[in-house]
Amino acid sequence: MKNNTKPTVEVCFSPSLYAPHHKPADIVVVVDVLRATSAICTAFEHGVERMIPVATIEEARDYKNKGFIVAAERKGSVVEGFDFGNSPFAYMNQNLQGQTVVLTTTNGTKAIETVRSAETVVIGSLLNLDFLSDWLAKQNKNVLLLASGWQDKFCLEDTICAGAITENLTSTGKFRSEEDSSVAARYLYLSAKDNYFGYLKASSHRRRLRDLNLNEDVKYCLTPNTTNVIPVLDGKYLVNLKQ
Amino acid sequence: MKNNTKPTVEVCFSPSLYAPHHKPADIVVVVDVLRATSAICTAFEHGVERMIPVATIEEARDYKNKGFIVAAERKGSVVEGFDFGNSPFAYMNQNLQGQTVVLTTTNGTKAIETVRSAETVVIGSLLNLDFLSDWLAKQNKNVLLLASGWQDKFCLEDTICAGAITENLTSTGKFRSEEDSSVAARYLYLSAKDNYFGYLKASSHRRRLRDLNLNEDVKYCLTPNTTNVIPVLDGKYLVNLKQ
Repeated sequence: MKNNTKPTVEVCFSPSLYAPHHKPADIVVVVDVLRATSAICTAFEHGVERMIPVATIEEARDYKNKGFIVAAERKGSVVEGFDFGNSPFAYMNQNLQGQTVVLTTTNGTKAIETVRSAETVVIGSLLNLDFLSDWLAKQNKNVLLLASGWQDKFCLEDTICAGAITENLTSTGKFRSEEDSSVAARYLYLSAKDNYFGYLKASSHRRRLRDLNLNEDVKYCLTPNTTNVIPVLDGKYLVNLKQ
Repeated sequence: MKNNTKPTVEVCFSPSLYAPHHKPADIVVVVDVLRATSAICTAFEHGVERMIPVATIEEARDYKNKGFIVAAERKGSVVEGFDFGNSPFAYMNQNLQGQTVVLTTTNGTKAIETVRSAETVVIGSLLNLDFLSDWLAKQNKNVLLLASGWQDKFCLEDTICAGAITENLTSTGKFRSEEDSSVAARYLYLSAKDNYFGYLKASSHRRRLRDLNLNEDVKYCLTPNTTNVIPVLDGKYLVNLKQ
């Protein structure tokens, strides 16, 4: 295949940089390693049937008032009055099997909102890294990896996960990257991959979660390839992709 | 000095990410290695007295009609009807000594426009890397390095230059970085520093300029520490900082 006819795989560092990156035919992968997209993957792995990502606390409260199970997180903590937040461990719960869960988080659900009009939106994390990469490789479409970041700022762990997917796809020889952000994400992934936990010691979000006694969450979220789910947006719902 | 009382040095990857990064008391350093801020440093090194950075071609045309010397670049090329663009070599010209030059470029002058309200705005490039770093180190103020990027996207060479300044300041022990973008910029600088030209082979802007036969410009802009000027914004003018 000629180089310029290969599909592209590109990395976007923040929802506020999405507009100049977006091409309508892209498959968009939303990444929020700590912890929204890791929690979403965990939920489907443990039998949740559907999720409804919402951007605001108000929407979450409306669903709560209608009797839904609702998870809400802001700045690392569960929002008062809600059932739980975005700790993946909260989703390993038999009572959630077959249920619909509404979710709002500081960055991840905002990122999903940003990309909602894309043709295909799937959820990526280190937990479903290789399984998702293999699926993406088979689609033969342009892929845009959106790092959710932290309040619109660049965030290291999302970039490293996006860099890992970029590396997986380009190393098949069937994809190309043209953007500097994709080149940088791969460079950062390649220097981090042998020790994510150590590499991210300097990351601001790891510090933030450590201060909230959430180190176990961090370790869980930084362990690659623990699940074979691909959450995909279908209207207002996230569901597990049927293959 | 206690860690959290040290001034910060942070990197912002794009003018469109500036708002969440900006703190009023920061010294903002605008970086556009290929080629606007390298051209500006070169202009002052070669005797230009003042520059007027403007964001749009229309403003540039107005100045031209008033008889000013005007440089205008878009997408790597000189804009038709203007005297020259942002090739540094164009500023090594005896006729420009003591003159005022108006400049508009695709990314660099837009970045200057974005930060105009900051307390202090200076111009950084690899050309004045160590001299500028030494001056910043003496100010004992928060420093925000703004990479101009390419049409709001992340750009590798600006990030590496910002990472170099970050490394220079943090290695004095008198500055701290808290943002992941600053950590990533330092990582990228440290892996690039022994061979900027080779490291940036994959960069999109280097490809763009190579296709325009501007490899000599690239080599010149990637050669650190060739000048001791610090262009600083003073009202609508850029002037060489008096020390």
